[in-house]
Amino acid sequence: MKTRIGIAGYGNLGRGVEFAVAQNPDTELVAVFTRRNPETVKIQTEGVKVYPIAEAASHKDEIDVLILCGGSATDLPVQTPELAKNFNVIDSFDTHARIPEHFADVDKACKEGHTVGIISVGWDPGLFSLNRIYAESILPNGKTYTFWGKGVSQGHSDAIRRVAGVKRGIQYTIPVPEAVEEVRACKNPELTTRQKHTRECFIVAEEGADLQKIEEEIKTMPNYFSDYDTTVHFISEEEFDRDHTAMPHGGFVIRTGKTGKGENTDQLIEYSLKLGSNPEFTSSVLVAYARAAHRMASEGQTGCKTVFDVAPSYLSPLSGEELRAHLL
Amino acid sequence: MKTRIGIAGYGNLGRGVEFAVAQNPDTELVAVFTRRNPETVKIQTEGVKVYPIAEAASHKDEIDVLILCGGSATDLPVQTPELAKNFNVIDSFDTHARIPEHFADVDKACKEGHTVGIISVGWDPGLFSLNRIYAESILPNGKTYTFWGKGVSQGHSDAIRRVAGVKRGIQYTIPVPEAVEEVRACKNPELTTRQKHTRECFIVAEEGADLQKIEEEIKTMPNYFSDYDTTVHFISEEEFDRDHTAMPHGGFVIRTGKTGKGENTDQLIEYSLKLGSNPEFTSSVLVAYARAAHRMASEGQTGCKTVFDVAPSYLSPLSGEELRAHLL
Repeated sequence: MKTRIGIAGYGNLGRGVEFAVAQNPDTELVAVFTRRNPETVKIQTEGVKVYPIAEAASHKDEIDVLILCGGSATDLPVQTPELAKNFNVIDSFDTHARIPEHFADVDKACKEGHTVGIISVGWDPGLFSLNRIYAESILPNGKTYTFWGKGVSQGHSDAIRRVAGVKRGIQYTIPVPEAVEEVRACKNPELTTRQKHTRECFIVAEEGADLQKIEEEIKTMPNYFSDYDTTVHFISEEEFDRDHTAMPHGGFVIRTGKTGKGENTDQLIEYSLKLGSNPEFTSSVLVAYARAAHRMASEGQTGCKTVFDVAPSYLSPLSGEELRAHLL
Repeated sequence: MKTRIGIAGYGNLGRGVEFAVAQNPDTELVAVFTRRNPETVKIQTEGVKVYPIAEAASHKDEIDVLILCGGSATDLPVQTPELAKNFNVIDSFDTHARIPEHFADVDKACKEGHTVGIISVGWDPGLFSLNRIYAESILPNGKTYTFWGKGVSQGHSDAIRRVAGVKRGIQYTIPVPEAVEEVRACKNPELTTRQKHTRECFIVAEEGADLQKIEEEIKTMPNYFSDYDTTVHFISEEEFDRDHTAMPHGGFVIRTGKTGKGENTDQLIEYSLKLGSNPEFTSSVLVAYARAAHRMASEGQTGCKTVFDVAPSYLSPLSGEELRAHLL
């Protein structure tokens, strides 16, 4: 059973989904939907058409799962419930605080449309969430730590680009090595925000800009930087282009706990990701969950799901027999 | 809904299950079954009785899930299908090659008994299997490596204790650091058995034993040691008691892959365990899956399952709302 996939929104994530579909022989791309003029959107896959997103519903019979590649701030809260009325959908909604509300909206739409929607798919939320639930269910007497990086934070990079005098800018989130080591040594440290991560910014300034003022403004920016030790580097546009256009990311979920009588039986579970391309990796997760959504819908399931609700076997192209023989 | 748990077989693993049940307020131990004379089995939990395993069936209405703590070689192939006729069961069957056959036997019994059986639960098979399926489903263009250790291999320790002149002995499996580093560097090495792990033995010899002969016999033992670089240390009984009675273990599952156009987008997923006590950790996994089995059975599911078939949410005592709000 091939899974026929549509992409809604063709930016970094949408392009990543297109690559991931090409790597999975049991999936195929059948349409891309965009808010832009479709004629201006050039995709990689030959023979696949780009349509205005407003016309998506008329293609519902050609598509098994629609993967939504818009942003969490304004796109997905509207698009996912809207499109879930007609399609099985996957999104990467990552505004943690608003997940319960988004879940409710998508669940309602899916039940009306008899579709399956899997939200908040990716690596955090997503694979990191899975590791939190597995580790906490297994070691109830313990403590979980999540570290992010080294990697590019899109939100923080956007924030520094809004500072006057900044021409180009990128921000890396970096776990504090001493904090990670303390956690790995099962010392159960209580860590403040500042003790867990540092932030490093690389900036190309506008000609004649006041560098000291830019640095000051970034370092004291509330919510984004004021609670962190931040380093600001001013570099040339050449250096920026050469060294800072990739989108690496990663991080760790670590749970330490004690079993038995709780004396000297330290147990450590660690999950880590080191990603050359954050959007391409996230897209690869989205496509695996698209396979799952297709199967769950084929079984007659409906409603909104998260990664917690999907049995691992649904993600794999292999049969139960093959999985038990080769991966168990 | 409390999960009422029975333990069948009270060795290291059974004791670990007893500890793990005590850490989970939504589970309670209601009975222990043994092949020994029940009067000779002293358990930790007050008020819980020990019964002959032959009488297990007469307690079926008091128990939601029976956790089988016998060995994979001879106990579980017989016990799991037999007990699955009357109980929801969990086992840690780990003879990889015989899993398909064991699955079929347990599935048949579960369907006759309208019960749920989850087999091959633990960390390998178990959590490592989960990481293999997630990682391979997400990065189809890649390579998976499993390393074990540093830790005690029960099978290899048993093998050296069978050598003439060995009074006490223990064997540690150790991943080769250079191999692990090459894998982490996304170099996709082809590694032989010898290149992946070394084996280290600590032995207390019988008085007057020929040490050179013992060492030679161990190092050349087929299947167990001949394909590995093995080190043999002779130590005093005091040192053995002081340093070598814990049962630590652990290991890594690493998948590296490429996404996008496949050029310079290395992606790395690594899962690692560092366990102070292998049996206590395995037991903790068994108890989490007992919670899942109870819920799946309460929903009317029947048949044999593996970790691949169980949605993560079933493992957690938290509700869907709580999980989405706090762990996603």
